[in-house]
Amino acid sequence: MIEGKLNDIGASLLYGQVGGGPGSFIGPVHRAAIAMNNQAKLVAGSFSHIPSKTVQVAKELGIDTDRAYADFHDMAVKEGARTEGRIDFIIITVPNHIHFAVAKAFLEQGINVVCEKPMAFTEEEAKELVALASGYKAEFMVTYTYTGYPMVREARNLVRTSALGTLRVIAAEYPQDWLADPIECAGTNRQAVWRTDPKYAGVSCCVGDIGTHVENLVHFITGLEIDKLAASLETFVEGRLLDDNAYVLLKYKGGASGNYWSSQVAIGKENGLRIRVYGTDGAIEWEQENPNVLRFQKKGGPLQLLTRGSGYLSAAARHVTRLHAGHPEGYFEAFANLYRSFCNVLMARKQGHTPDPLDVFPTVVDGARGTKFVFDCVKSSKEGAVWVDASFDI
Amino acid sequence: MIEGKLNDIGASLLYGQVGGGPGSFIGPVHRAAIAMNNQAKLVAGSFSHIPSKTVQVAKELGIDTDRAYADFHDMAVKEGARTEGRIDFIIITVPNHIHFAVAKAFLEQGINVVCEKPMAFTEEEAKELVALASGYKAEFMVTYTYTGYPMVREARNLVRTSALGTLRVIAAEYPQDWLADPIECAGTNRQAVWRTDPKYAGVSCCVGDIGTHVENLVHFITGLEIDKLAASLETFVEGRLLDDNAYVLLKYKGGASGNYWSSQVAIGKENGLRIRVYGTDGAIEWEQENPNVLRFQKKGGPLQLLTRGSGYLSAAARHVTRLHAGHPEGYFEAFANLYRSFCNVLMARKQGHTPDPLDVFPTVVDGARGTKFVFDCVKSSKEGAVWVDASFDI
Amino acid sequence: MIEGKLNDIGASLLYGQVGGGPGSFIGPVHRAAIAMNNQAKLVAGSFSHIPSKTVQVAKELGIDTDRAYADFHDMAVKEGARTEGRIDFIIITVPNHIHFAVAKAFLEQGINVVCEKPMAFTEEEAKELVALASGYKAEFMVTYTYTGYPMVREARNLVRTSALGTLRVIAAEYPQDWLADPIECAGTNRQAVWRTDPKYAGVSCCVGDIGTHVENLVHFITGLEIDKLAASLETFVEGRLLDDNAYVLLKYKGGASGNYWSSQVAIGKENGLRIRVYGTDGAIEWEQENPNVLRFQKKGGPLQLLTRGSGYLSAAARHVTRLHAGHPEGYFEAFANLYRSFCNVLMARKQGHTPDPLDVFPTVVDGARGTKFVFDCVKSSKEGAVWVDASFDI
Amino acid sequence: MIEGKLNDIGASLLYGQVGGGPGSFIGPVHRAAIAMNNQAKLVAGSFSHIPSKTVQVAKELGIDTDRAYADFHDMAVKEGARTEGRIDFIIITVPNHIHFAVAKAFLEQGINVVCEKPMAFTEEEAKELVALASGYKAEFMVTYTYTGYPMVREARNLVRTSALGTLRVIAAEYPQDWLADPIECAGTNRQAVWRTDPKYAGVSCCVGDIGTHVENLVHFITGLEIDKLAASLETFVEGRLLDDNAYVLLKYKGGASGNYWSSQVAIGKENGLRIRVYGTDGAIEWEQENPNVLRFQKKGGPLQLLTRGSGYLSAAARHVTRLHAGHPEGYFEAFANLYRSFCNVLMARKQGHTPDPLDVFPTVVDGARGTKFVFDCVKSSKEGAVWVDASFDI
Repeated sequence: MIEGKLNDIGASLLYGQVGGGPGSFIGPVHRAAIAMNNQAKLVAGSFSHIPSKTVQVAKELGIDTDRAYADFHDMAVKEGARTEGRIDFIIITVPNHIHFAVAKAFLEQGINVVCEKPMAFTEEEAKELVALASGYKAEFMVTYTYTGYPMVREARNLVRTSALGTLRVIAAEYPQDWLADPIECAGTNRQAVWRTDPKYAGVSCCVGDIGTHVENLVHFITGLEIDKLAASLETFVEGRLLDDNAYVLLKYKGGASGNYWSSQVAIGKENGLRIRVYGTDGAIEWEQENPNVLRFQKKGGPLQLLTRGSGYLSAAARHVTRLHAGHPEGYFEAFANLYRSFCNVLMARKQGHTPDPLDVFPTVVDGARGTKFVFDCVKSSKEGAVWVDASFDI
Repeated sequence: MIEGKLNDIGASLLYGQVGGGPGSFIGPVHRAAIAMNNQAKLVAGSFSHIPSKTVQVAKELGIDTDRAYADFHDMAVKEGARTEGRIDFIIITVPNHIHFAVAKAFLEQGINVVCEKPMAFTEEEAKELVALASGYKAEFMVTYTYTGYPMVREARNLVRTSALGTLRVIAAEYPQDWLADPIECAGTNRQAVWRTDPKYAGVSCCVGDIGTHVENLVHFITGLEIDKLAASLETFVEGRLLDDNAYVLLKYKGGASGNYWSSQVAIGKENGLRIRVYGTDGAIEWEQENPNVLRFQKKGGPLQLLTRGSGYLSAAARHVTRLHAGHPEGYFEAFANLYRSFCNVLMARKQGHTPDPLDVFPTVVDGARGTKFVFDCVKSSKEGAVWVDASFDI
Repeated sequence: MIEGKLNDIGASLLYGQVGGGPGSFIGPVHRAAIAMNNQAKLVAGSFSHIPSKTVQVAKELGIDTDRAYADFHDMAVKEGARTEGRIDFIIITVPNHIHFAVAKAFLEQGINVVCEKPMAFTEEEAKELVALASGYKAEFMVTYTYTGYPMVREARNLVRTSALGTLRVIAAEYPQDWLADPIECAGTNRQAVWRTDPKYAGVSCCVGDIGTHVENLVHFITGLEIDKLAASLETFVEGRLLDDNAYVLLKYKGGASGNYWSSQVAIGKENGLRIRVYGTDGAIEWEQENPNVLRFQKKGGPLQLLTRGSGYLSAAARHVTRLHAGHPEGYFEAFANLYRSFCNVLMARKQGHTPDPLDVFPTVVDGARGTKFVFDCVKSSKEGAVWVDASFDI
Repeated sequence: MIEGKLNDIGASLLYGQVGGGPGSFIGPVHRAAIAMNNQAKLVAGSFSHIPSKTVQVAKELGIDTDRAYADFHDMAVKEGARTEGRIDFIIITVPNHIHFAVAKAFLEQGINVVCEKPMAFTEEEAKELVALASGYKAEFMVTYTYTGYPMVREARNLVRTSALGTLRVIAAEYPQDWLADPIECAGTNRQAVWRTDPKYAGVSCCVGDIGTHVENLVHFITGLEIDKLAASLETFVEGRLLDDNAYVLLKYKGGASGNYWSSQVAIGKENGLRIRVYGTDGAIEWEQENPNVLRFQKKGGPLQLLTRGSGYLSAAARHVTRLHAGHPEGYFEAFANLYRSFCNVLMARKQGHTPDPLDVFPTVVDGARGTKFVFDCVKSSKEGAVWVDASFDI
């Protein structure tokens, strides 16, 4: 459990939300994750561009209807102008193609941002957000949720403390099966419709949606920077305009190599994100669907199953652990961990303290790295899956 | 996800808490679980018997300090007398030996109750609570948390719809290791101290704390009623006054038999609750540490791994599912599911509707059944692990 | 692999077989296991009591038909009288009720014996075989096959070298499902017919067939001697004369306790023998269906998965390892390991050497212990699953 | 078990061996596998090029020393000239670089051949062996052992009977860790020395040794023919002359794509061959280290764990099953299954019967396909991991 203090010490921060109205999957997840921490209170929102709907959601969520907006620009300006009850941060849970515009609008008001990935549609937009966040000294979190799992933190700590020696090989994958059939044609699955439509999803479906999680998680755990890559993006479902399966080979700076596979047509796979890292002295393996266990191998010894909540884990893992070992934590708690760290940092800043270095979360720079990765993959694939320079420099 | 509606549609219920102050593990878990649902708001509490502490917690939790109490009797009377802003339910998260007194005090005010298990110290107390709840027409939930897992609901549905045929054999266990050493002697682990002290824990440590979860979960899934049992309660750690390991053999009404093992000295086991049910036509197996999977076997066919969130599951499982398949749910969500059903029932009653039959939760009767089980085990063991009549009739 | 030498160094021993003709499952398994080692050659046999059949099998197996017998007494006398080409040992693979008579006949010729379990029908017979083997200085192996697995040897070594500290709790089980229906009535499954018939199977079906494997394996690994036990033998299939499900609670000498469950009606279980041992300092867990892995837990550390063939294992495990790690060994190899050790001991004796202490196998004394266990369980169950004295003293 | 007949019906075939003397790992494995079947008897051999050693091994194996040779050419000619007691087949268990010469020598005598993979050093040699086998009407088995596992046969049957629909994605891998350090420099591990030496191992270490098993097993199960591939072969251990890690991306004829990873530096991996096949209607997954289970997924249904020996399996799996479900079979049995089918075919041919179509094994054509795969990978990698045509046409 969170050591030495109540884990719900009062909602001292205020936040607003753009998106998350009726039919949204991820919108309520964000709110529930924040609610678990009891650190922040929802006070404003643009939940729908239809005025009556945004007001209705506000009522249901117990928000003053004066602070319910149909237009997010309007919201940014008005909320930005408040002197009392001003929101400390905005959470952006709209479809991908609007992320950039919303983020920009609130950054320009000096409001801290939490944005779903991908935070931008192009590399230029991504760079602009990095610059804005820097210029306005705003905190900017991109919700690469999987970085919030305690055993991912343990993996990161093992790599960063050299328990694996020099890294050599990364084998990572993210197979799913929800797009194995042309379900976007029926139109009933809203997410399927926009994910496969270049207008709303951007240049890629599979890499953009899940391949980018692989990229982010590998980077979060290992710190490796990609040097070059070769990607083969494929579309198995006839008539689909974007990729639904992708292979990426990678060379990292420093000599390690890697192999990412992501798929939306792998029958039977639900959310099979898996990261394996091999070094000269050891290896780790972690699977998102069994997140409370980290497989750790020291050279020459037996495989060890490290479990969340155990006394032998590092401070990095314990910092984001809520329950005793054996009481499973899941996706919601990973999400809530990101928000806790984000809110801790905001509170530290408000109070003039240095944030706890264990309060890490994916930032606008990680978002920009992810955007570049998607574009590099698309570029390589279009040219015949050739090797392309893929170094990231911001 | 919860189908067709926002899963946080506004805090329309009010609640109070007794217990859950500084150092409490389970108190904040209850609050976080309730917060995830956004159905109820904490407005009153007796968090500590020390006046300054209860006030401080109230402040931290954003509660009006007028409604912070040091004495729970005082709280029951005053809160019971309110006409406006009256609490809809009280949650009881104090040590075991006070459960009964607190529950009784609030029932006598006609206030609905949520109580940690065991809800009572003796069979007489348990019967009294059953009678009070019935007399006051109060809803009374005992938080046998594991009944809130979606795949437990699926297991229950499979058994209840005869997918397993006639039940024959139950093999259930709950090994842990946290009391393998005499940690109660050091005094630093508060829970170890009171769990092993008959004054606070009652007649049993191992059976009372975890064996009773086995009893409850088997009953919840199968509906089987125990006919007789033979129990061997053992104490491995020298000087300990209560049991830390227990075997129970059981004969159920109708011909099935069972075998429960619970232990607090099984090195390496964290929270290893596992239920296996074998019938004439099929079998199921479920493990709390891997709660998103239910193993299901039809006679003659291959083992099937049913996973939470999948389209082939029953309405019973879907009703308490929050996230898509592959996004792990854990202990917090199981807890929150119990609260959601409890709150749904309270709201239905307030609105004069019939509650949804899928909104099930362990009741005061289940609590009484659990209390009797513990006493029957202790009785059998004391007489030499002989078979004793263990039928429950209330 | 077997270190430093060919693992097939020439068939220098000769053996005969009683049983193992057409329709036999286990007879050919014994021969194949011996063949893997290339240490012994089959030269005589009584494969059937029908003269033409025994001759036919002899021909198929490439044996001189002069040494094919219909009557095992005849075989024992004639083979015992040979001075040249005399068999070094006899293997007994007939139905249970003839084990004793065959074993006795060959022991009385001073011929070493390998016998399927149970080696006897009554405790008196068992004692007589122990006395005969001792009197004739014959080696006598009972093929409790599971003791031949390398990781069982590792488990034994860990317990015997105190890696687990003082033993406290044994949780062992052996569920199967092949008798879940009354298949003996159809008559087509020969084994089902005799296993459920007291005339051929003795006093117990489930405990006699598989419960005894649990008893043997626990003893082999831990060395624990049973002090008393309470057993509940049950019959779920209507009309069946013997037990098909059994629970046994045990107290061992020295303070440990245990819990054995064996079943032949546990739908979906194929051959689920599993042993778990918990001590003050550590624990182990082994499953027969995944035999190349041993789960090992040191107090306070992570669970370790020890794998057959690994460099960190003990000499005890390496002694019976044939293949590199990662190349699965199975039931045949376990069987062959028993025969290798048995043959090694015979060769050492012939050559006047002291046998390698790593060449262990279950002996006639273990067979007698197993026989007593079955009778103790039946006695307890008949008297109402009461506790009975179950100490073994020979 | 093998249905309806003894599984050891007499050694009616004779065989010889080249290689398999002192220090050989695989030589004795072949002999033990053959011995399990009791179909063939070893009568001649060239176990070492040192005359005294080959004679000694012959003695130990019980072979007439007249038929022990130091020179395999000598052996081929003399054994080929026999009219009585002529060997039915030769098994070749020498280092890679001699495979071709030995195979050719015996084929030219019209003797059937069993050869370890890779059967040739160059594509030209491979083609020559195909032509020779065809010209002499000789059976030629290449011991890609993993094709002998029953659940691999089940996988093949599922794919071939369209249970998976149209194939889309292959994800296959074979990580090991035994070459993670420069152990070849010490010189004590003979296999490490020659595997990493181009003179003895050929153009590749990692792909040649284990990548080729991936290629073969995917082809065996799916029947897919490679159209083009891009391979990145890497060497992580400094000073090593050949690859120790390799990624291969593939496009198959007909539209499926694939991804093979093989490694000898993946710390903790013992023999991690794993094949996953995804089609439009289903998927399968099989791991060599847990060979008795096949994971099978039908679209929309739960994951099924198919287990060797179960009644619901196909004739293809049952044909090579020896033991009841739950009694693990391993690497030796897979090996023995290949030999059984090979011997069955030889016997059928001798007796003028049509071989049973279930008696399949990897042939000289599969060996040639494997040789080409290795060369295609090396070619692609040398040119910068570019895509190369990789179709196989013989």
